Amino acid sequence: MRHFLTTEDWHQDELQHVLDRARALKAGASSSALSGKSVALVFFNPSLRTRSSFDIGIAQLGGHPVVLDARAGTWPMEMIEGTVMDGDAEEHVVEAARVLSRYVDMIAIRCFPKFEDWTAEREDPLITAFARHASVPVINMETIVHPCQELALMLALQERLGSVEQKTFLLTWVPHPRPLNTAVANSAVLIASKFGMNVRMLVPDEAYRLDERYMSAAEQECARHGTRFDVKTDIKAAYSGAHVVYAKSWGALPFYGQWENEAPYRAKGAGFMVDEAKLAMTDKAVVSHCLPMRRNVKIADAVVDSPAFLGIEEAENRLHVQKAMMEALSRDMDGCG
Amino acid sequence: MRHFLTTEDWHQDELQHVLDRARALKAGASSSALSGKSVALVFFNPSLRTRSSFDIGIAQLGGHPVVLDARAGTWPMEMIEGTVMDGDAEEHVVEAARVLSRYVDMIAIRCFPKFEDWTAEREDPLITAFARHASVPVINMETIVHPCQELALMLALQERLGSVEQKTFLLTWVPHPRPLNTAVANSAVLIASKFGMNVRMLVPDEAYRLDERYMSAAEQECARHGTRFDVKTDIKAAYSGAHVVYAKSWGALPFYGQWENEAPYRAKGAGFMVDEAKLAMTDKAVVSHCLPMRRNVKIADAVVDSPAFLGIEEAENRLHVQKAMMEALSRDMDGCG
Amino acid sequence: MRHFLTTEDWHQDELQHVLDRARALKAGASSSALSGKSVALVFFNPSLRTRSSFDIGIAQLGGHPVVLDARAGTWPMEMIEGTVMDGDAEEHVVEAARVLSRYVDMIAIRCFPKFEDWTAEREDPLITAFARHASVPVINMETIVHPCQELALMLALQERLGSVEQKTFLLTWVPHPRPLNTAVANSAVLIASKFGMNVRMLVPDEAYRLDERYMSAAEQECARHGTRFDVKTDIKAAYSGAHVVYAKSWGALPFYGQWENEAPYRAKGAGFMVDEAKLAMTDKAVVSHCLPMRRNVKIADAVVDSPAFLGIEEAENRLHVQKAMMEALSRDMDGCG
Repeated sequence: MRHFLTTEDWHQDELQHVLDRARALKAGASSSALSGKSVALVFFNPSLRTRSSFDIGIAQLGGHPVVLDARAGTWPMEMIEGTVMDGDAEEHVVEAARVLSRYVDMIAIRCFPKFEDWTAEREDPLITAFARHASVPVINMETIVHPCQELALMLALQERLGSVEQKTFLLTWVPHPRPLNTAVANSAVLIASKFGMNVRMLVPDEAYRLDERYMSAAEQECARHGTRFDVKTDIKAAYSGAHVVYAKSWGALPFYGQWENEAPYRAKGAGFMVDEAKLAMTDKAVVSHCLPMRRNVKIADAVVDSPAFLGIEEAENRLHVQKAMMEALSRDMDGCG
Repeated sequence: MRHFLTTEDWHQDELQHVLDRARALKAGASSSALSGKSVALVFFNPSLRTRSSFDIGIAQLGGHPVVLDARAGTWPMEMIEGTVMDGDAEEHVVEAARVLSRYVDMIAIRCFPKFEDWTAEREDPLITAFARHASVPVINMETIVHPCQELALMLALQERLGSVEQKTFLLTWVPHPRPLNTAVANSAVLIASKFGMNVRMLVPDEAYRLDERYMSAAEQECARHGTRFDVKTDIKAAYSGAHVVYAKSWGALPFYGQWENEAPYRAKGAGFMVDEAKLAMTDKAVVSHCLPMRRNVKIADAVVDSPAFLGIEEAENRLHVQKAMMEALSRDMDGCG
Repeated sequence: MRHFLTTEDWHQDELQHVLDRARALKAGASSSALSGKSVALVFFNPSLRTRSSFDIGIAQLGGHPVVLDARAGTWPMEMIEGTVMDGDAEEHVVEAARVLSRYVDMIAIRCFPKFEDWTAEREDPLITAFARHASVPVINMETIVHPCQELALMLALQERLGSVEQKTFLLTWVPHPRPLNTAVANSAVLIASKFGMNVRMLVPDEAYRLDERYMSAAEQECARHGTRFDVKTDIKAAYSGAHVVYAKSWGALPFYGQWENEAPYRAKGAGFMVDEAKLAMTDKAVVSHCLPMRRNVKIADAVVDSPAFLGIEEAENRLHVQKAMMEALSRDMDGCG
């Protein structure tokens, strides 16, 4: 039995099989992989797109989705074993994982970091505890990485560019009123490097480097493929020759939980919105962004509404890649049964 | 492809076809019009009856309902094109509509006005923007009109009265502790006039006239049918000879968003509750109200619990008319496909 | 047509039939008892386990679940007939029950007491009003009793112990930071006494006696079976010779709604956590608790993680007993139809 917690645990060729199957499902192939099965979708944070695409995908595979809204605060859950539970948490993840495993055949979880203590949160404690105690496959619907988004992005790139190998992928930090989770940024460098792309990050300051876990994973993947991994603070150097521009905003980890001190660093990226002038420096790059997306703050309307923009395709692909992944996990599950 | 945003866009005979089909479905006809299809139910405001009746109706048509709870405040959405999205809104309706159109085959939306600025809100900006950018049919689950309630009411009237033509429909303002949305009142005059009834409004003061858009639409429909459209402030004049009494409370538009100034006008309607004494002035009128309904504030128990009350039938009919409408929209959709 | 509001309304042999059927369903028997039917799950209080197990169970029986989140406060509902509804409540339970009965084939309700006035709340006013006005079966998903949990517990006991007759069931009060609902405690003494067990309660003080309604029901059932019903405050006397230890925390009724005065009584139970030392006094007792459960506050890790702990089985059994009960109610329903 396998989980899908992060693409780091999966080989490129395994993921490529999932992508190939997703493309077939998108083209109209049908599957009853979840017939007679139930899948729990546990949301510790709200969601509309993830919730829709999983819910519909499960139904299309013949399964029954059960959406559980466990918003942070309304259902505090203990994650540490051996604790005396005299605080807020009414339930231990051990019981939650064991009981859900009796009811359903697969568990998908969304649980964002709490922006309190990155040292603890970088271990992704809730979903890893769930996976340890569940007896059914666990899927990550976004925690400190967002692996389903990674697959959706890579499918959109392969559909548009054909092979992505040796192409140049630019992850550019873009403005946003607030510091955000690094999950999609972490995921962008993981998937681009794993599939053989040159990976560049454009950040307002070195303070916006991602956690070393993801930086070194990307470096190793680039080394394996003979591609380059660079971090740049100069717009022109970053955009020059890029084939893909992926926009995302995130908070700088050195200021994690004390965001007031991040403001001067954030100000350095005030001009980082993706626009036509910057795109003109690229090698006819396509542009994408996970949704939701603030227009004219992160990406200019002229770009979003141009044929270069892949964001809608990427969002649609969430449905197809998630179906393909659930089918793959379901197959492994039956192998064990 | 057609939307169902307001009955103003539909001819009487088209709506009658939907009502006839609803009656057949209510009598037990089965339909698999949504087999293999998904419908998103997007709620910007809470709902139990609308949510239940759509959810069950979609399942009965063989489809898969996806309920999205996008409460105002938790998912602020930008509706204006070209905006620099540096405020609260994280997502533009353009992307929401495009992506949902990739996932589902139909989108139903509930979005009440915000009671801030009627000049803007009378344009029904969110659902009209959704309809403009969606590539699947959009259904109104109540915004500034409530067209599904209109069909449910008209079906209940036809079931009880047979032909409604030339009969007299009284929409009476009734007391309520707070000013409410005008949607159901707007809808009541639209549907009664469109189906050939004499339409009377009973209001505590001319300040309770509905938006001119609905007043003039009703006048035109009455002119087309040779029926009368009147606004009255005298209880006896209003009830005399009525065949249908439809009760609803709403806020007076001149005080929209500044309700404290409405109080003296509201006080004039203190005696407007529907009761047996008033009903005695009618031509054996039936009585209805969309639910929920405050007993003994809007309508007296003796009326609600009498055979004259059609409110439960009207509520049940929501299920049947919505199924018939989704079937009709689905047929158009396939025609385009 | 029957409801399932409390096990008090059902004979032991009727419940045993449901348990036997639950065991068959757990062993893999399939049923399409709800084919083409819908069930409304109405939650006035949040739930994850109850929601999942009902949702999945309904789907497994071929039915369509509709989850309605009617959190206390967001959908205040009038329960008293004849009231002038000029307060918070927008809807009367009469209309809610009648309309839902038109949409669905069964209604399940969770509505906890409000901790305001036990004299009123001990009548379980909302669910009994719903049952009075609904024309379809109503199921209790926890109010002031939790009959589905009772069946799940009894199935787990029968699976582990074989016959439970003449065995000794200890309901022990255990610590918790807050006073809780007595529902599961009430239910524990009801089901254990009904199935012929000696029933003991261990409480920190006589103030923790349950409502006389449940105390006398348990006494009568014990008298019928020739078993004993005792309330003890001494740990050793309570645990000695017990075959089942069921842990639960609850608030003392004399302080209902004025909990600050309960503190000194609550303090007397500070040492009441279930642990290995206490279990050593029993006759190799099994241990259970409805979930969620605070580890190392209510029950020590060493007990929860031992083979003596039945809580996960009990939780799993919720699914099976609820399916069996819905099947039984559905059969009665058809008999009437």
